[in-house]
Amino acid sequence: MFKVNDNYLKLPGSYLFSTIGKKVNAFAAQNPDKKIIRLGIGDVTQPLAPAIIKALHVAVDEMAQAETFKGYAPDLGYEFLRKAIAENDYKARGCEIAADEIFVSDGAKCDAGNIQEIFSVDNKIAVCDPVYPVYVDTNVMAGRTGVYDSAKEIWSDVIYMPCVAENGFAPELPKETPDLIYLCFPNNPTGSTVTKSQLQEWVDYANKVGAVIIYDAAYEAYISEEDVPHTIYECEGARSCAIELRSFSKNAGFTGVRLGFTVIPKDLKCGEVSLHSLWARRHGTKYNGAPYIVQRAGEAVYSEEGKAQLKQQVAYYMNNAKYILEGLKSAGYTVSGGVNAPYIWLKAPGGMTSWEFFDYLLEKANVVGTPGSGFGPSGETYFRLTAFGSYENTVEAVDRMKAL
Amino acid sequence: MFKVNDNYLKLPGSYLFSTIGKKVNAFAAQNPDKKIIRLGIGDVTQPLAPAIIKALHVAVDEMAQAETFKGYAPDLGYEFLRKAIAENDYKARGCEIAADEIFVSDGAKCDAGNIQEIFSVDNKIAVCDPVYPVYVDTNVMAGRTGVYDSAKEIWSDVIYMPCVAENGFAPELPKETPDLIYLCFPNNPTGSTVTKSQLQEWVDYANKVGAVIIYDAAYEAYISEEDVPHTIYECEGARSCAIELRSFSKNAGFTGVRLGFTVIPKDLKCGEVSLHSLWARRHGTKYNGAPYIVQRAGEAVYSEEGKAQLKQQVAYYMNNAKYILEGLKSAGYTVSGGVNAPYIWLKAPGGMTSWEFFDYLLEKANVVGTPGSGFGPSGETYFRLTAFGSYENTVEAVDRMKAL
Repeated sequence: MFKVNDNYLKLPGSYLFSTIGKKVNAFAAQNPDKKIIRLGIGDVTQPLAPAIIKALHVAVDEMAQAETFKGYAPDLGYEFLRKAIAENDYKARGCEIAADEIFVSDGAKCDAGNIQEIFSVDNKIAVCDPVYPVYVDTNVMAGRTGVYDSAKEIWSDVIYMPCVAENGFAPELPKETPDLIYLCFPNNPTGSTVTKSQLQEWVDYANKVGAVIIYDAAYEAYISEEDVPHTIYECEGARSCAIELRSFSKNAGFTGVRLGFTVIPKDLKCGEVSLHSLWARRHGTKYNGAPYIVQRAGEAVYSEEGKAQLKQQVAYYMNNAKYILEGLKSAGYTVSGGVNAPYIWLKAPGGMTSWEFFDYLLEKANVVGTPGSGFGPSGETYFRLTAFGSYENTVEAVDRMKAL
Repeated sequence: MFKVNDNYLKLPGSYLFSTIGKKVNAFAAQNPDKKIIRLGIGDVTQPLAPAIIKALHVAVDEMAQAETFKGYAPDLGYEFLRKAIAENDYKARGCEIAADEIFVSDGAKCDAGNIQEIFSVDNKIAVCDPVYPVYVDTNVMAGRTGVYDSAKEIWSDVIYMPCVAENGFAPELPKETPDLIYLCFPNNPTGSTVTKSQLQEWVDYANKVGAVIIYDAAYEAYISEEDVPHTIYECEGARSCAIELRSFSKNAGFTGVRLGFTVIPKDLKCGEVSLHSLWARRHGTKYNGAPYIVQRAGEAVYSEEGKAQLKQQVAYYMNNAKYILEGLKSAGYTVSGGVNAPYIWLKAPGGMTSWEFFDYLLEKANVVGTPGSGFGPSGETYFRLTAFGSYENTVEAVDRMKAL
């Protein structure tokens, strides 16, 4: 008789955003007259930029003619896209990353979930607390996290690095030595970030203890301050200890288009084994490439026209972030984030728990946010709002919250 | 110090088609004047049908307007596509599969590779020999296959079911009881298939011994004979023992568009745990949906216009199959397949091994095929040709082979 992967059964509850979705749907069904404003899940709302739409149409037409039709893509992505990435995201910032160290994929969530697979099940992970649930849940599924303590909401074999008001929501080097360190800056969910010298400390630490940093830079386009690194490869020594995950979802609105990439420098090795070769093997065996038309859309992100249009799109969302940040501050909320990230992290008022505030906000203001406790125990009593709504909805949501 | 997943290191050589690609590229570089005809990897060559192109353009335009823009897709796929699949692929064939038992994905290769993850590492797999390499390799990566015997080219913990001329390339029920049984009909690589009553025996067997059949029906559009099942759910009892993998790659030319789906009936359980819930959890945690525009293209496959156009496309490839089959037969080759599948399976002449024949054919006729031994030990001395080339190239390749 077949058996299932028992690790799946250890997962408490369902995926955070599925739970939120169900709660909101139930509320909407009971209150069909209420206009619900969703500032919960980090989904974009602005349409694709004209340069991207144009590239998509051109690529679709190529698929209509035998001479220009494209079948299976190269395993690791089309050269035209990998070159554009290497040039714009790395070389332009003085980072030495070759096109063939870039693996094109259908998004950073998939890569963030799958990357653990090339490591030993015995490896110990360290995560920020609060944290994007995918890092932890996928390690649970792989059997890497030990036993769950449902009272404390922590796993016995995970090293948690609290990110709280006291440390400016920036993790400190862990006391226990990890093998894999998940870092995300600008951070989801807190919207905080670190300076280049702070990140350099992490790189030095990882090289010293023989750990790999899995660096999620999905929100780098939202960085507005000077001293904040856009990629971990700005730090010296990162090529021998860091994998970087990148996304087109937030900088170009590709949440429904699906495109991302992962960088694994060839210097990153365990003895003689390069992680690059393992990830290439995974891509070749379990993946079949991102759609040609989508890779062409990704290329358009790096065109002069595309860059200009997307700069405006990011500015639009950051204007929302500013409105939320200032509005809630003026209403007496304790808030952070929102300067280098599209996320605002606020303290639930009146001693409410995160989920209490979720229900309160949904019911009283018909505004959907994300409970901080859903991201880890140190997120309890916190709450995440996103700047990805329309300006009109954002203003209305903040005004409703101010009126509570 | 971090460690890697040692199971990856057990994999012999590289992924079959990567190896072939490298060999062909080397030959092409040394022989720039030779016109190489590729009938190796099962990649399509005909452009997307007009109905699909139209749907893509319409969907791209929707992404250009805030009112119709689509962000994250529903975890398991858009309802419009899941309904079209349930209606056309199942209800129309008298099979009871609900839309919410269908999981839309970016292709059958990914699903074929990932599906093993919801099962225990202790489970024992059975595969046809020869077999599509992804089934075995992904189980190797998960640590489910034991020790590799490089002389025999077999894994100690895999049950091999030889498909050879003597049994008409149809597997027999294994002596040792498996937990997971991978079946693929119409078959890749042999092009053979089974009748409905033969498949019913497998379903009865799986239900009896408590095994799950992972049924890959990626080639069902090529079935031309009456008594051959298009889906395993045509068999009684399949809802409690079978997962079906389906693809848009071969019936609609989506190899570069990326779309597939997996069916897991809710009756398929291990005790109280439904496999449907585990796969839903995996989708929700590690995947972010197929692109909206691609799902709309998938919907167009089921339109009246799309169906008519794709019927012609399949007929085009099957005409190639017929030309190969008859041409090689007349030249004295021993051939099979090609009637219900786009693959022709032939015996290497003159006692050559599969790779010897690969090199011989590449060098003498500049034709690329796939060595049968790359699919498993029982594939040794066999060779696979695909019908996915253009008609002109197919004719030229066969004529060159006849002239050898």
